Amino acid sequence: MRPNNRNSNELRPISIITDFITHPEGSVLISIGETKVICNASIEDRVPPFLRGQGKGWITAEYAMLPRATEQRNIRESSRGKVSGRTMEIQRLIGRALRAVVDLDKIGERTIWVDCDVIQADGGTRTASITGAFVAVVLALGKLLEQEAIEELPITDYLGAISVGILPDGEAVLDLEYVEDSEAKVDMNIVMTGKNEFVELQGTGEESSFSYQELEKMLELGKKGIEEIFQIQKDALGELAERIGKKEGKS
Amino acid sequence: MRPNNRNSNELRPISIITDFITHPEGSVLISIGETKVICNASIEDRVPPFLRGQGKGWITAEYAMLPRATEQRNIRESSRGKVSGRTMEIQRLIGRALRAVVDLDKIGERTIWVDCDVIQADGGTRTASITGAFVAVVLALGKLLEQEAIEELPITDYLGAISVGILPDGEAVLDLEYVEDSEAKVDMNIVMTGKNEFVELQGTGEESSFSYQELEKMLELGKKGIEEIFQIQKDALGELAERIGKKEGKS
Amino acid sequence: MRPNNRNSNELRPISIITDFITHPEGSVLISIGETKVICNASIEDRVPPFLRGQGKGWITAEYAMLPRATEQRNIRESSRGKVSGRTMEIQRLIGRALRAVVDLDKIGERTIWVDCDVIQADGGTRTASITGAFVAVVLALGKLLEQEAIEELPITDYLGAISVGILPDGEAVLDLEYVEDSEAKVDMNIVMTGKNEFVELQGTGEESSFSYQELEKMLELGKKGIEEIFQIQKDALGELAERIGKKEGKS
Amino acid sequence: MRPNNRNSNELRPISIITDFITHPEGSVLISIGETKVICNASIEDRVPPFLRGQGKGWITAEYAMLPRATEQRNIRESSRGKVSGRTMEIQRLIGRALRAVVDLDKIGERTIWVDCDVIQADGGTRTASITGAFVAVVLALGKLLEQEAIEELPITDYLGAISVGILPDGEAVLDLEYVEDSEAKVDMNIVMTGKNEFVELQGTGEESSFSYQELEKMLELGKKGIEEIFQIQKDALGELAERIGKKEGKS
Amino acid sequence: MRPNNRNSNELRPISIITDFITHPEGSVLISIGETKVICNASIEDRVPPFLRGQGKGWITAEYAMLPRATEQRNIRESSRGKVSGRTMEIQRLIGRALRAVVDLDKIGERTIWVDCDVIQADGGTRTASITGAFVAVVLALGKLLEQEAIEELPITDYLGAISVGILPDGEAVLDLEYVEDSEAKVDMNIVMTGKNEFVELQGTGEESSFSYQELEKMLELGKKGIEEIFQIQKDALGELAERIGKKEGKS
Amino acid sequence: MRPNNRNSNELRPISIITDFITHPEGSVLISIGETKVICNASIEDRVPPFLRGQGKGWITAEYAMLPRATEQRNIRESSRGKVSGRTMEIQRLIGRALRAVVDLDKIGERTIWVDCDVIQADGGTRTASITGAFVAVVLALGKLLEQEAIEELPITDYLGAISVGILPDGEAVLDLEYVEDSEAKVDMNIVMTGKNEFVELQGTGEESSFSYQELEKMLELGKKGIEEIFQIQKDALGELAERIGKKEGKS
Repeated sequence: MRPNNRNSNELRPISIITDFITHPEGSVLISIGETKVICNASIEDRVPPFLRGQGKGWITAEYAMLPRATEQRNIRESSRGKVSGRTMEIQRLIGRALRAVVDLDKIGERTIWVDCDVIQADGGTRTASITGAFVAVVLALGKLLEQEAIEELPITDYLGAISVGILPDGEAVLDLEYVEDSEAKVDMNIVMTGKNEFVELQGTGEESSFSYQELEKMLELGKKGIEEIFQIQKDALGELAERIGKKEGKS
Repeated sequence: MRPNNRNSNELRPISIITDFITHPEGSVLISIGETKVICNASIEDRVPPFLRGQGKGWITAEYAMLPRATEQRNIRESSRGKVSGRTMEIQRLIGRALRAVVDLDKIGERTIWVDCDVIQADGGTRTASITGAFVAVVLALGKLLEQEAIEELPITDYLGAISVGILPDGEAVLDLEYVEDSEAKVDMNIVMTGKNEFVELQGTGEESSFSYQELEKMLELGKKGIEEIFQIQKDALGELAERIGKKEGKS
Repeated sequence: MRPNNRNSNELRPISIITDFITHPEGSVLISIGETKVICNASIEDRVPPFLRGQGKGWITAEYAMLPRATEQRNIRESSRGKVSGRTMEIQRLIGRALRAVVDLDKIGERTIWVDCDVIQADGGTRTASITGAFVAVVLALGKLLEQEAIEELPITDYLGAISVGILPDGEAVLDLEYVEDSEAKVDMNIVMTGKNEFVELQGTGEESSFSYQELEKMLELGKKGIEEIFQIQKDALGELAERIGKKEGKS
Repeated sequence: MRPNNRNSNELRPISIITDFITHPEGSVLISIGETKVICNASIEDRVPPFLRGQGKGWITAEYAMLPRATEQRNIRESSRGKVSGRTMEIQRLIGRALRAVVDLDKIGERTIWVDCDVIQADGGTRTASITGAFVAVVLALGKLLEQEAIEELPITDYLGAISVGILPDGEAVLDLEYVEDSEAKVDMNIVMTGKNEFVELQGTGEESSFSYQELEKMLELGKKGIEEIFQIQKDALGELAERIGKKEGKS
Repeated sequence: MRPNNRNSNELRPISIITDFITHPEGSVLISIGETKVICNASIEDRVPPFLRGQGKGWITAEYAMLPRATEQRNIRESSRGKVSGRTMEIQRLIGRALRAVVDLDKIGERTIWVDCDVIQADGGTRTASITGAFVAVVLALGKLLEQEAIEELPITDYLGAISVGILPDGEAVLDLEYVEDSEAKVDMNIVMTGKNEFVELQGTGEESSFSYQELEKMLELGKKGIEEIFQIQKDALGELAERIGKKEGKS
Repeated sequence: MRPNNRNSNELRPISIITDFITHPEGSVLISIGETKVICNASIEDRVPPFLRGQGKGWITAEYAMLPRATEQRNIRESSRGKVSGRTMEIQRLIGRALRAVVDLDKIGERTIWVDCDVIQADGGTRTASITGAFVAVVLALGKLLEQEAIEELPITDYLGAISVGILPDGEAVLDLEYVEDSEAKVDMNIVMTGKNEFVELQGTGEESSFSYQELEKMLELGKKGIEEIFQIQKDALGELAERIGKKEGKS
């Protein structure tokens, strides 16, 4: 049995609190079970050098954990003087995923900085970050729209993410919490759009491997979980939800 | 007039939420007006090399801001690869202040790591950190006491901190918020014990100076504010509050 | 048409030169088309601190490019003073993949350092690194076996890797070279074992997404390519090839 | 008794050698007892980016110790690759203190770099640095005046600094040397202007606290010491001393 | 006897393979005995800030070893986060030596980046780097000439380098391999031009010293060795060899 | 003519002040013309890991300049976070040179740290550092001898260093000051022992080369200069001078 009697295809309780912090253009506190991440989206009126003068925007993400977000305290990356490989991998993933659903040609020469700060970790922090960051980015761009700085919401589709895996007994499960994740023989992160297409698929055998059939089972669980996540994102976004994927001209 | 019609000797509303995060031995979310800081105290069963074998403990503090805790996004210190002078100054201050009221000889060869993470900043983040960190440390040591790892609560006195300053018009005020702090001609941070003694006094003229009379006025405001803070700490600590400053032997 | 009239399911010419450099226990120069990587495996008689005293070994990988392996010269990471996120991601991938087929319990308290140095890059450097590193590791462990430092070849299965992708016109292709890779809308790296199981699956839509059907098509191409790679690895390994996946006791 | 039979309100012998080194615009060797600091002021004809185009200048300070300025050799900060928190704290303090008496609006778009290099340390290096740096800055600005690059000496007042403290026996003393400082229960640095106003006040209980009465006593000692320091600065500055705090227009 | 019965005045076998890698403007694999270095010359169409607007070019060199180029694996400098003193010394030497024979006034505002990557080390890597880098630079400038970007080959003379030394038995020898170098009491690197003039002379007694007579003997050996190296460079350069040191005007 | 009408074979005035700073075991202020360097030798009772347990000592050197030792202020290396290639080259040179005349087998498991801090630079700082450091090391070892921690002065010979060069007009000169050094076409540093043997010889053509005859002329000047330096060292060392190069047993 899974902790709390969860079924293999069952998500942990998810909540998304919007406008969590006052300064950022978009701010969200997402909780998935005991995992809690503050996702802030900030809009800066310029782009990195490689994009200047192209009339196009950029999205970049940073990810960090509070030192005691975990059972054992981790050394703060600023004290260590460098960002770990794991952190870099995650922040590259978050940025890439968001760029798949934001129409960068429509946001002008602006950079959206996404900061995902894990305040409590219990597995699935990177997928929670993507799910929460999507909402924060929509809120931030919604603010630009409100200020008439842009003409339409430049979000082409929903974006949600979840982890799936294979437990040591061979069972495929949805949304692994930490005690499961640390023992799983396969760990997969899935990022999908509202049209059920993949944006990222990262499956890893931990000193192990997995078959085609196991892959199919995990993808099925992931799809079910992400569809439920889309509903929670819609509820959190309220009116803005309706403008996602809609093209509205000036006409 | 001050923002929100505050009087010159009036604190902003303060709240201290205990057990904010589940993993740390002591965890607090302190809010002073719009300033919000997560203060976590972690207990590690060893001390830094310079203290080994002395049967004595240590307290060290780290301080950070979320990038968008402020109106303008700050570069993350882990990305920059080094900690700023301001951050170092603050974390040294927090650690030093706490060491004045924790009896390090009574905690065994343990290190208390204090992490103060500012999630929203509106002035006074360093004094809020000290005030909140004190509560987190008491909670953490309370847990050691409960586990009978120590015999008494090794806290010799209360510890509270507040900022005071002189506004451009010459008025001395208590608890400056950001808009006041950024214009103040004098900025002073006061850390005091429950017995009304000073632990730290840091007054700075910003391209300016201050007289002995102005100093006296600021110290008076600070004392008043910190006394109110002690009451809020007591309420937050509940039963543990009574054990502060008490010596209880095995006898 | 693809460059050089390649079919969508066709690998570029692959060669694996063994014993390329004299000092390392295992050394390989792998070429896949114009991509050339030196893969060296070094055996060190100790393990990292977290594994000491467990009688178990470790594998870790490092990856780098010569500054002018690419069309434009890149700043040397040692000059920049830090390793990029891309490099970290790749070296973590190589190490993880190898750990899936090396029986770390059978190599004693030794670390295998795998160095993949790209001397010329034309797409697919990370998959070429894995494919070549596998051969280098087998050679290095073969040397331990020859010295009777271990009793059997602790390699449980073959390990090969290849990239697949979707070109802008929607065609799924095997083994992308640089000009294809830089324009592909989907890029996927597949690492598989000799038993046709997945060790890693990393698919990424580049400001794009992909359907379940596209995923299936890519997996099919990848499986075909990796089977051909296994044959080339076998030829390069000679006699040692026969000992892979065989358990031989002292009996 | 204090070392060398000093009275509690007595300074150690102080000397200020001007024009110690030839290249800097202002150069001073200050000795306070066995503490010796080279203070150099350099004028650069540009300001940091945040001040450009405002017609205003800047002062910034750096502080370092020779590795063997102390009883035990310290690792050189350049070898360690980073500046310690203590160093940062001190250099921020020196810069801030000087900015309180230099009229930055009158020096044009120039930066004054102040370098305080301790060649021998025996307590009070930070206050000696401020006292010496003030003289070096006046000399450097005097040179600008001589070259008619500025119209008046843009120094609004004298600036001196000294340490005071409470010894373990409760006695308040002026100007602590190292053996006193390392045992003191309270350590306070005071920076004052010629008009007897405070620029900085930094009092710290070392695992201890101090009362209002002790504070008053320390402030009184500090005031006395700094008044004596002003006289020594005047002697060192010669003619330039008379131009401090004087406004002279072209008129 | 020396290894392989080499005479004291005998070079190891030398080979220079040109166009070793495809991307760089000039690329060479040089082997001297078992020492192998890839020397790549890249041309960038701009100069460092200190040279801008002077119509003049620059040459800079970087040097690195693959971690397992040596008998014991070395930590990768990019992982360590800094370049060693030895590496810096060598790359400064290579750059300086090349600048002595390249007419920087004739290459326009271009930087030639020289990358020397040692893939196998057996003594003499720095002198092999200079000898190989010279050929790579000539090839790169030859390409500029071919494209008519410059009017003549701006190489004023040949440049070759070799090591000489004194073995523990007092014998002076040419071209030390690693086993000799690690025991030599004197180690000297000589860089000369085609006109038999010195560009660099670096002689070092290793916890030892050397007499004027020993110096003379070493210089004689070095001259003989470098003359042989010039012939090998000429053969490698083919037609371009004839253009070295020739001035051809527009006239 | 040279500045100050110096002859080509004439040294600038040299002075060596011993016991300049109180804490180090050996401390010297050396001046050669306007070049001034503080050379401190510190004795630490342990050796680096690679030497432990061999009953042998070590010497290591560090070199730095005060930021304003030069005409233009240099960025402090501790602020920059890394040591320049030039600095590394010089500190390696100083350490190596000293190791040639100190009998490391006779100093026990001790490290001699040599710190050369240039407070004013006018050419020849590295050779002045070696010349001064030699005296500081003798003083430090003399102190060990006095304490009877060692049985004889483990200095095998004198050690002196000077620069020579070729001016643009072809004249060979001794002891270049900055204005000469910055224009010289050849720059050579010579380190010699009291027996007139070479310890280091580093000659560099600056975008230039030099003939065998020029080398001979420079070596002759260097020998003359260093002989004069030995006399000044002897005077500075007083009684200790007589113990250099003497073997005295317990017998």
